[in-house]
Amino acid sequence: MTAPWSRNLQRDRCGVLTVEIEHVDVATLEMLEQQGVDCQPKASTIRIIQDKYLQKVHFSQHAIPLPEFMQIEDLEGAKRAGDLFGYPLMIKSKRLAYDGRGNAVANSVEELSSAVTALGGFDRGLYVEKWAPFVKELAVIVARERDDSILCYPVVETIHRENICHIVKAPANVTWEIRNRATDVAYKAVSSLEGAGVFAVELFLTGDGQILLNEVAPRPHNSGHHTIESCYTSQYEQHLRAVAGLPLGDPSMKSPAAIMYNILGEDEGESGFVLAHQLIRRALSIPRATVHWYDKPEMRKQRKMGHVTIVGSSLGEVEEQLKAMLKEESSSYPSAVTPHVGIIMGSDSDLPVMKDAARILDMFAVPYEVKIVSAHRTPEVMFSYASSAWQRGIQVIIAGAGGAAHLPGMVAALTPLPVIGVPVRASALDGLDSLLSIVQMPRGVPVATVAINNATNAGLLAVRMLGIKDVDLLARMSQYQEDTKNDVLKKAEKLENDGWESYLNP
Amino acid sequence: MTAPWSRNLQRDRCGVLTVEIEHVDVATLEMLEQQGVDCQPKASTIRIIQDKYLQKVHFSQHAIPLPEFMQIEDLEGAKRAGDLFGYPLMIKSKRLAYDGRGNAVANSVEELSSAVTALGGFDRGLYVEKWAPFVKELAVIVARERDDSILCYPVVETIHRENICHIVKAPANVTWEIRNRATDVAYKAVSSLEGAGVFAVELFLTGDGQILLNEVAPRPHNSGHHTIESCYTSQYEQHLRAVAGLPLGDPSMKSPAAIMYNILGEDEGESGFVLAHQLIRRALSIPRATVHWYDKPEMRKQRKMGHVTIVGSSLGEVEEQLKAMLKEESSSYPSAVTPHVGIIMGSDSDLPVMKDAARILDMFAVPYEVKIVSAHRTPEVMFSYASSAWQRGIQVIIAGAGGAAHLPGMVAALTPLPVIGVPVRASALDGLDSLLSIVQMPRGVPVATVAINNATNAGLLAVRMLGIKDVDLLARMSQYQEDTKNDVLKKAEKLENDGWESYLNP
Repeated sequence: MTAPWSRNLQRDRCGVLTVEIEHVDVATLEMLEQQGVDCQPKASTIRIIQDKYLQKVHFSQHAIPLPEFMQIEDLEGAKRAGDLFGYPLMIKSKRLAYDGRGNAVANSVEELSSAVTALGGFDRGLYVEKWAPFVKELAVIVARERDDSILCYPVVETIHRENICHIVKAPANVTWEIRNRATDVAYKAVSSLEGAGVFAVELFLTGDGQILLNEVAPRPHNSGHHTIESCYTSQYEQHLRAVAGLPLGDPSMKSPAAIMYNILGEDEGESGFVLAHQLIRRALSIPRATVHWYDKPEMRKQRKMGHVTIVGSSLGEVEEQLKAMLKEESSSYPSAVTPHVGIIMGSDSDLPVMKDAARILDMFAVPYEVKIVSAHRTPEVMFSYASSAWQRGIQVIIAGAGGAAHLPGMVAALTPLPVIGVPVRASALDGLDSLLSIVQMPRGVPVATVAINNATNAGLLAVRMLGIKDVDLLARMSQYQEDTKNDVLKKAEKLENDGWESYLNP
Repeated sequence: MTAPWSRNLQRDRCGVLTVEIEHVDVATLEMLEQQGVDCQPKASTIRIIQDKYLQKVHFSQHAIPLPEFMQIEDLEGAKRAGDLFGYPLMIKSKRLAYDGRGNAVANSVEELSSAVTALGGFDRGLYVEKWAPFVKELAVIVARERDDSILCYPVVETIHRENICHIVKAPANVTWEIRNRATDVAYKAVSSLEGAGVFAVELFLTGDGQILLNEVAPRPHNSGHHTIESCYTSQYEQHLRAVAGLPLGDPSMKSPAAIMYNILGEDEGESGFVLAHQLIRRALSIPRATVHWYDKPEMRKQRKMGHVTIVGSSLGEVEEQLKAMLKEESSSYPSAVTPHVGIIMGSDSDLPVMKDAARILDMFAVPYEVKIVSAHRTPEVMFSYASSAWQRGIQVIIAGAGGAAHLPGMVAALTPLPVIGVPVRASALDGLDSLLSIVQMPRGVPVATVAINNATNAGLLAVRMLGIKDVDLLARMSQYQEDTKNDVLKKAEKLENDGWESYLNP
């Protein structure tokens, strides 16, 4: 029997059918597919994904790493699972589970029965998972074209509150190796499914660096909301491109960092709305924040009412801004302007030289900080300064030192940021000792060395580096070069007009 | 008499009233304002702007530079204006003029009469403008809050086809000084008006660097369409924030460059649609392009049917991609991956050293080019390479040279990009001559110098610099440092286990 409305979905009337949530009647989808309706992703994929147990079976058959799991049909089965996997034991509903619904934890054999009851009993279809000792939860949005070519979005970290996605950090603050491993698992997981579209792959990162699959959603996902502002192609446009058979867009980030904060209902009814609106007010004061309010008619505790995305030049910067947004009493917010350049020197005796770098940065309106950090006298300060600089939003470090000038090279060894070294002329050797100590770095750790005592050039070099991502700075640098040329031309003209003798003795 | 519907706009039912086009009945707006409806911008502003002659009078009273103009009421007046301003003479309708409608050019006194007729005769209200000998048309989107604080978007260049906006380049490829001047004029023009909202200020740049006001629109504008993808806050969101009394968002660019292309009707009816859809197909193949199709029911020649915005890391890059998109026969598009690093050297004898920089860039998957450019033997090549590198999308230059090593410094003098210098050991002095020739640059022109023969470090330094805008690269650099550490630790362990003697004689 064909449902009357399904005739309206014949190939000539419906170009393609996709889903925005996997909890749909998959039998109908399959019937439509048989009638020639183009479903993307395929009904087979929806069938696998909407049953979490089936999903685990599928992925384990495709050699995707995931926590151990087993089906349970009665309390005896649950106990056997507890003996096998230990406690805490995660018990899950096979179907209609999302945003933490359908999960229950039993901390001991005594809690098994109540956990099963909380999930509606064995008739609902339950299975257990071995507790994954994760240190972080990661996620990857994967886009798959009709021709099966695949593009992956950057790996993000997801932070949950009572099992509900609350904060997403993009990109995840994990090593390159972990990112690659997470992307590989996500790629393989989606490769094992059928059909085009955007898929969200949720992952566990364990303490020993393993990546385990948690679950897959066959659609745009909360972990990809940040892509609207932070990526060249949002997950929503990408999903439509994929299912419609259009070429995929670039999934990479156009902003170095983004943080997404879900506005979850704090309270029922009116008071919940008041709290949410206070939060939105504060979010609107952050210049690089975007507010999304879903305009749901009813406020409930823990309900997703909207979200805020803040983009910026480093995770440290956007985290600071989120922190300020969440302070209820805060009336002022850290500006988007955190220091971008750190000027450090081994001793205050270097300051008369190093001040020239600060002067240049002032001229170009680049925010900076100035600090004394000695490699030899305050090695711990140097260590913590260099290794935390990137997290704090510093983008270039200018380090000045004299004599056995170790500061620039040591700092370069402790940070992935570019380090500019200024050889300061010390008492002996006219600065050649400083220069060679700074420039002759071993393979692997570069220091961008400028001329002896020439902190002006260090400032200018920092501006040129920052110009890589800021065309305004690049244009200002061109203007600076033009102005310098005009200064010299003026002098040349004066010399021409006055003659060399009166030029020297005015 | 109060129109019956206007009662529905009383203060309690309508928070704020704004306009999306200035050609509205301003008398009604004024009446609503008197009744307490909050109009943003103010009716007074709409009244000034919708009459182009009144607009000119207003801005000239506020000392905003603009082309000379005068009202004309009959042919005699037009002739007097022609005598005064010369030909070609621009004749304009005072009202209902946009997208080139309402403009006519008289190239001589004989053409005056037909130009006036083309505009519907003197009864429509006409004025003339002295021809502005512009070299570029610029525009600035200006956002003004209710408290009169003002934020300006980056200056863009607009390119018109038959008086209709066709291409917008953001930011405009003009000097920093010109950008500042244009922003100043736009700021002053909007300051002279009343009410909140987004305003588009269209400007002429003349050959001698003057900025003249063309006209102002009191609303989001075609010259700001690119902001949807390229700026932290789009002009549309900004307008709503401004009129609703919310804090303004950041108007700066989150992508270094953007180009917007209006899809104008090429032909009436079906064949016009076919051409437009072919263009869209090609646009969709460009990974960082976004297509906006307005779904207007009718296709007409020169009608704005949609637009495409391409963002990228330099104007050169997005211009190349637009060019490819416009080639009808093109089947492949320049990828978003143009070389980001230029590796140049004075002689092929430097290649055995310089290859190490290329190896590092390969390892980090950074696109690069390798060229021989000699300061002394091919000064013209050096000059053109260095001065065009930025336009071509190069972001960092690595230059190697030996002996009297002038290449890095000379290139640095000709580009605003960061230049990394590699001193190559020549036959004499063990490379100290090369090192000092490269590092001891005068104030004003920095070269980031690395150790003698150490092109590996030059490659690593380039990666660190590019990491300023690419967190992936930064993470890979951290991983590289981690891997290097592990290599050394392995050697240390082997030495520990084997003892130093068997370590040396395995």
